[in-house]
Amino acid sequence: MKAAIIGATGYGGAELIRLLHQHKYVEEFTLHSSSQSGVAISESYPQLTNITNQSLQSINIEQISKNADVVFMATPSGISTEITPAFIENGVKVIDLSGDLRFKDPNVYEKWYKKTSAANEVLEKAVYGLTELNREKVKNASLIANPGCYPTATILGLYPLLKNIAVEANSVIIDAKSGVSGAGRKASLGTSYCEVNENFKIYKVNEHQHIPEIEVALKTANNQLGPIKFNTHLVPMTRGIMSTIYCQPLASVSEKLLRNLYQQYYENDRFVRVRKEGEYPATKEVYGSNFCDIGITFDERTGWITIVSVIDNLMKGAAGQAVQNLNVMHGIDEGTGLLGAPIFP
Amino acid sequence: MKAAIIGATGYGGAELIRLLHQHKYVEEFTLHSSSQSGVAISESYPQLTNITNQSLQSINIEQISKNADVVFMATPSGISTEITPAFIENGVKVIDLSGDLRFKDPNVYEKWYKKTSAANEVLEKAVYGLTELNREKVKNASLIANPGCYPTATILGLYPLLKNIAVEANSVIIDAKSGVSGAGRKASLGTSYCEVNENFKIYKVNEHQHIPEIEVALKTANNQLGPIKFNTHLVPMTRGIMSTIYCQPLASVSEKLLRNLYQQYYENDRFVRVRKEGEYPATKEVYGSNFCDIGITFDERTGWITIVSVIDNLMKGAAGQAVQNLNVMHGIDEGTGLLGAPIFP
Amino acid sequence: MKAAIIGATGYGGAELIRLLHQHKYVEEFTLHSSSQSGVAISESYPQLTNITNQSLQSINIEQISKNADVVFMATPSGISTEITPAFIENGVKVIDLSGDLRFKDPNVYEKWYKKTSAANEVLEKAVYGLTELNREKVKNASLIANPGCYPTATILGLYPLLKNIAVEANSVIIDAKSGVSGAGRKASLGTSYCEVNENFKIYKVNEHQHIPEIEVALKTANNQLGPIKFNTHLVPMTRGIMSTIYCQPLASVSEKLLRNLYQQYYENDRFVRVRKEGEYPATKEVYGSNFCDIGITFDERTGWITIVSVIDNLMKGAAGQAVQNLNVMHGIDEGTGLLGAPIFP
Amino acid sequence: MKAAIIGATGYGGAELIRLLHQHKYVEEFTLHSSSQSGVAISESYPQLTNITNQSLQSINIEQISKNADVVFMATPSGISTEITPAFIENGVKVIDLSGDLRFKDPNVYEKWYKKTSAANEVLEKAVYGLTELNREKVKNASLIANPGCYPTATILGLYPLLKNIAVEANSVIIDAKSGVSGAGRKASLGTSYCEVNENFKIYKVNEHQHIPEIEVALKTANNQLGPIKFNTHLVPMTRGIMSTIYCQPLASVSEKLLRNLYQQYYENDRFVRVRKEGEYPATKEVYGSNFCDIGITFDERTGWITIVSVIDNLMKGAAGQAVQNLNVMHGIDEGTGLLGAPIFP
Repeated sequence: MKAAIIGATGYGGAELIRLLHQHKYVEEFTLHSSSQSGVAISESYPQLTNITNQSLQSINIEQISKNADVVFMATPSGISTEITPAFIENGVKVIDLSGDLRFKDPNVYEKWYKKTSAANEVLEKAVYGLTELNREKVKNASLIANPGCYPTATILGLYPLLKNIAVEANSVIIDAKSGVSGAGRKASLGTSYCEVNENFKIYKVNEHQHIPEIEVALKTANNQLGPIKFNTHLVPMTRGIMSTIYCQPLASVSEKLLRNLYQQYYENDRFVRVRKEGEYPATKEVYGSNFCDIGITFDERTGWITIVSVIDNLMKGAAGQAVQNLNVMHGIDEGTGLLGAPIFP
Repeated sequence: MKAAIIGATGYGGAELIRLLHQHKYVEEFTLHSSSQSGVAISESYPQLTNITNQSLQSINIEQISKNADVVFMATPSGISTEITPAFIENGVKVIDLSGDLRFKDPNVYEKWYKKTSAANEVLEKAVYGLTELNREKVKNASLIANPGCYPTATILGLYPLLKNIAVEANSVIIDAKSGVSGAGRKASLGTSYCEVNENFKIYKVNEHQHIPEIEVALKTANNQLGPIKFNTHLVPMTRGIMSTIYCQPLASVSEKLLRNLYQQYYENDRFVRVRKEGEYPATKEVYGSNFCDIGITFDERTGWITIVSVIDNLMKGAAGQAVQNLNVMHGIDEGTGLLGAPIFP
Repeated sequence: MKAAIIGATGYGGAELIRLLHQHKYVEEFTLHSSSQSGVAISESYPQLTNITNQSLQSINIEQISKNADVVFMATPSGISTEITPAFIENGVKVIDLSGDLRFKDPNVYEKWYKKTSAANEVLEKAVYGLTELNREKVKNASLIANPGCYPTATILGLYPLLKNIAVEANSVIIDAKSGVSGAGRKASLGTSYCEVNENFKIYKVNEHQHIPEIEVALKTANNQLGPIKFNTHLVPMTRGIMSTIYCQPLASVSEKLLRNLYQQYYENDRFVRVRKEGEYPATKEVYGSNFCDIGITFDERTGWITIVSVIDNLMKGAAGQAVQNLNVMHGIDEGTGLLGAPIFP
Repeated sequence: MKAAIIGATGYGGAELIRLLHQHKYVEEFTLHSSSQSGVAISESYPQLTNITNQSLQSINIEQISKNADVVFMATPSGISTEITPAFIENGVKVIDLSGDLRFKDPNVYEKWYKKTSAANEVLEKAVYGLTELNREKVKNASLIANPGCYPTATILGLYPLLKNIAVEANSVIIDAKSGVSGAGRKASLGTSYCEVNENFKIYKVNEHQHIPEIEVALKTANNQLGPIKFNTHLVPMTRGIMSTIYCQPLASVSEKLLRNLYQQYYENDRFVRVRKEGEYPATKEVYGSNFCDIGITFDERTGWITIVSVIDNLMKGAAGQAVQNLNVMHGIDEGTGLLGAPIFP
C-alpha cells in the first residue's frame, strides 16, 4: 500500500518514517510539511541519511489523495479538524494521531483543547483506535482517532479491572510520568536541556487535556465511575510513560485473581504483557517497542490495588499504535513492522 | 564545637563534610569509617582535595567521645543501634541519620527493617528531628533521630492539612519519586548507570520502610488517619525527591483558605517555602539547599486536594536537616551554614 | 542457520538476542552463561518477556557444537582463549566479540591485556572482522575476531586518509568518547549512576588496550605511521562512541578532494555514511543502528585535518558488526537483520 | 559594596545572584534586564523565592551609576560594547562577562564575533581577568574583561607548560567538551532536551570564537606558538568543561618534573588544584565551585604530554571568576564568597 505522512518533521512523524521504512506491505510513503516543503527530510533528521533521501512536499490534498491509500496525520491539534474531512471525502483512509477526533461530543474537545471542534459527522465516522479495545471496529474503519499517549497506558492499565471488579467509584487516582519527547519537537525554554535535566516537575496539575479521553473510555467499562484524579510529571528522559494507578475495590481481592483476570483479558493481545507476581515494568523495558507492560498488585495492609502501566510514548503511545491500526484496517498481521525487541540498555 | 562523622564515605557523610566545612561554629570535625581507616578522604572524594586533607579514622568510641561534642551517624541501618548507646553514656550528643531510632515501638522497626531494634531506653531518649514539627524538643535533646528523606517531604507536605482540615481518613495517597543518591554510595547493578539512565522505575511497591515513619508522624496530626498508600519511584537524576499527594477533604475547601493555612503554619520556618497559587515546585528548585517547597491546590472538578512537596534528599532529607538540628540543639541561628541558594541550573 | 550465544547475560549478548530475533535466516538460537544456567533470560532482561522465553544453558562445548552452526562469544577477555579452539576443532564457526583473538602477535595481547594469549595457530586462523576492510577474508573465515568498539570507529574514520594521503607520521591524535554501556553489565562504583551522571571523565589515559588494535590496522594503510595518541572519555549516556581525530597532511588538501576520497572508498559499504560538507555526525544519529557516520574537514588556518567518526558501540561496535560478519560468512545479504533506522529521538 | 547585575535573567546572571547573596562584603545588589523590567526575579527563577524577592529593573545607566560601585555585565556579545563606556566614564567599575572586551586588536573581535568592536580606548583599559595570570593588573583595574569558559580551562592547563618547556610550536591540540549551560538560557531546538540527551555532538568545528582568545593568551607564554587546533563538543550534562590537551615537547620530560613545575606555578593559587600522579579530574569534582583542576602526564611510548583541565563553566568559567576578580579589585580576600566545596554527587 501507499502512505502519506502529514507533519513528518515532528517526533511522531519521524517515528512513523522509522516504522514504515521497515513495513513490508508499505511499498511507498511520501512526507508532507506545511513549513519545510522542498527540504530533504535528512536535513531535519540526519539519522535518516541514505534511509530515505526524499524531500518534504507541501500538503496538497488532491494530489495526496490520488497517490495514497492511507494518510497519517502527525500534526498539532487543530490541523486534522481542518483537512481530514477532505481526505475522507476523497476515499482515502486517515489515521489521525492528534487529539482532534477522539471525542463524540464536540463540547468536550472545545472545553479541554480550547479550539473549534470538527463537525459531528466527522466525529461520528472516527473510530477510537485503542486497538486492544476496539479491534473489531478498527477493522472496518476508514478514519481512526489514534489515542493519546497517557490514555493508552492508563486505559490499558485499568480497563480489565473496571470491567470486572467493583470499585469505589471515586477512588481512581492516576499519577502519570512522561519523558520529554511527548512535548514534541520544538524550541521552548520549558523543555530545554538545562531546565529538564536533573529535574523532576509536575505540570498541568488537574488540567491535562487527556483527562476526558481517559474518562470517556473508562466509563465504557464501568459507567458508575466518578471523575478521575490525574496528574502528569516530566521525567528527565526522552521516551517512556508510566501510569501509577491507585484504586480501591469494594471488597478484598486476591492477587492471583487479579492477575488471572488481566491475563485472560489480554490473552490474544500480543502487545500487552501482564507481568508476573512481584514484577513491575520499568519504562526502559518497552523502549522503542509497541508493548504496553502492566504490573498489578493488591495491598492487604491498605485494601487498595496498585497498577503500573508503561509504554514508549512515541510507539504504543503514537506511531506504533498507528501502524498497529494500519495493519488491522488492512487485514494484515497486526504485528507487521512492529515486532522488534525493545532496545536495552 | 567539635564534631565527628561516622560513616563519612557515604553520600550523606560527604554532604555533611561539605556543610560542616562552611559552618562557622564547627571549628573541627573528624571522619570515621569502619572499612577505610587510614585512607585520605580525598581518595574517595577527589572533590575534597585541599578542602579537607584529613584521613579517615577507625570508629573508636572512647577516643571520639573525648574529642567530639556531637557525633553524626551517617551509617547504614543497624550500626546506630549498636554504638549510639555508648556515645550517649559518654555524654556525647548524637544525631543519627539512619532509620534505627525513629520509632518508639521496637516492633515497628523490626517488622519493617527486619533487624533487631535498639533498646526501649534508647528509643525513649531519641527526639524525632523533623525540625519544623519538633523544634522545642530538639532544643533540649541529646539524641536526635533524623528523619528519612521521603518522610521529610511527605510529612511537611501533609501536616498542616491533616491538623486543620477534616479529610476522608482512608483517602491519603502519596506517590513519591526520588533521585538515585538516596540509594547510597555502593556498587549495585540496580543503580548502575545503564540500568537507570533513560528509565523510570517503581520499587518497593507498598513495602517501603518509610511507610510507618510517615504514618506515626501524621497520626499526631490526625489520629483517625487510616493506612497511607505510598509508593516510590526511581528517577534518572542524582538528587531530589517529590511527593505528589492526593487527599479528599470531607467538604469543599477554597484554594485560598488552604494556602493561608499552610503559610500560617510555616510562617516562622525559613526552610519551608509555600509556593503561590498556580505554582508548583520542581526538584531542581531546591537542589543543594535545605528548602522544602510546597505547592497545593483544590480541584473543584473532583473535590480532591493535590499537594506537591519537594526536597533535596541529601540536604533537607539528610545532612541539611541534621545540621539544622545541630543548630537548634546548640541554641545558635537555625540557618547557620545552610543559607546558600539552590544551584540552578 | 542455528546460533549459540555464549555470555548472553551481558549487554553485548542482549543486543545479539535483539538482532538474531529479527534475523530471517537464523531459525534458532540458544543462550549460554557460566553463572546463570537454568534461569530464564527474561529474569535478567524483562524487556525480552514473550520475545524469547528460553532459559540460559550451561556452556557445554560438545552439546553446543552438535546443535549450532555458529557460536557468538560475547564474553569477557580470557574466555575465548580457553574455549574457542574446541569449537573450531568441532567444525563450528566462531565470531568472537572479545579482544582475545585480534592480534597475530601474542606478545601484544599479553602486554596490553595482561592475560595469557591464545595459541599462535588459533590466532592465525582468526580473521579481523572489520567488515569494510576485510570483506573478502571474512567470506571464507571460520573464525572471526570481531573488532573493538573504539577501533571500529577510529579505523573506519582514518583508513581512507592514511591509505591515500601523505601525513606527518607522528601527528595522529584520537580523542575518543564513549557511553557507559561499553563497560559491560556489572555492579561497579565507577559506573554507578551518581558517579557518572552530570559528569565527564577521562580514563585509562594513554593506556587503553584498544591502542595496539588501532595501530596494527592503521599500519596496513600506511606502514610509516608512528604511535598514535589515544585517549578515552566516559560520557553520561548509555550508547554511542565518537572519535575526534586530528592529523596533519604533508601538504594542503582540498576539502572536496578529501570528501571524494572517502565517498569513493566507502562507495559499496552501506553501513558507512560519509556526511556532506559542513555536517558532522552526532552519536544519537546512529543510535540502535549499524551505521558508522563520518564527517571530515580540512582547516585552512592550521593546515590540519579533523575527522569525526561515530558508531553505536553495541551495534557497529559489537553485536551489529558481528551479525554483519555472520551474513558475509554465510553469503547472504550483508544487511540482513541490520537495516532498521536509528532510533531518534 | 554595592553591585548591579546587567543581564540578570541569564544563567550567568543567576549564578552571580547565588554568589553575591552569600558575599559578606556586598551589602546590596540590583538586577537589570532589557526585556523583563518590573518582573520579580523569582518569576524567572523560582529557586530564588525568599532569597531575593526583588524585581528586575530597566538598564538605566545614570541611575545604576549613582547606586552601584561595580557593574557585572552578564550580557550577550554586543551589549557591553555599547554601554560599558558610559559606566567607565561615570567612574563605576565594570566586570564584563561577555566576549566584547577581551582583545586589544579590534579586528580579531570583528573577525571571530562578526560584530562591531568596542573602541580602542575602551579595549586599552580592559584588563583580561584570568586572575591567576594577571592578578597584579586586576588589583588596579577599573574594567575587567572576564575570560571565556573554554579559554579559562585551556589557558590554565597550558600556561605553565608553554612558559617553561620547549614544545613543537605546531603541536598543540585542544579537544574541549562542555555541558549545555554554556549555551545560555534560551529556547532553541539544538539545546532542547530530546536533541541533547543521550547524544554527544561536535560543534563549531575549527571555528569557535574562543580560539583567538586562547591563542593571544598562550602567546604571552611562548611567542613561537603556532595556531592551535581547537574543537568543542556538547556533553549531555548541564555544567562542566573539560579540555583534553595534547602537546609534543621537543625533548623527553619526566612526569615528576612536569608536576613540580605546575605545582610551583600555582603554589599561591588556591583555586587551581594540580592533581597527583595518576589522578585526572572529572568535571563533577569541581561542580558548583570555583576550582580549576588539572591532571598532567607524559607518555613515554609516544613522547607526548597529555593535560586534562576541568572547571565549572558557570563558576570559574564565568560568575565565579568574576567574583574572584571583584575580590582582587577591592583588596579583600580572594576567596570571599567562593569557598564552598563542590557539590557531589
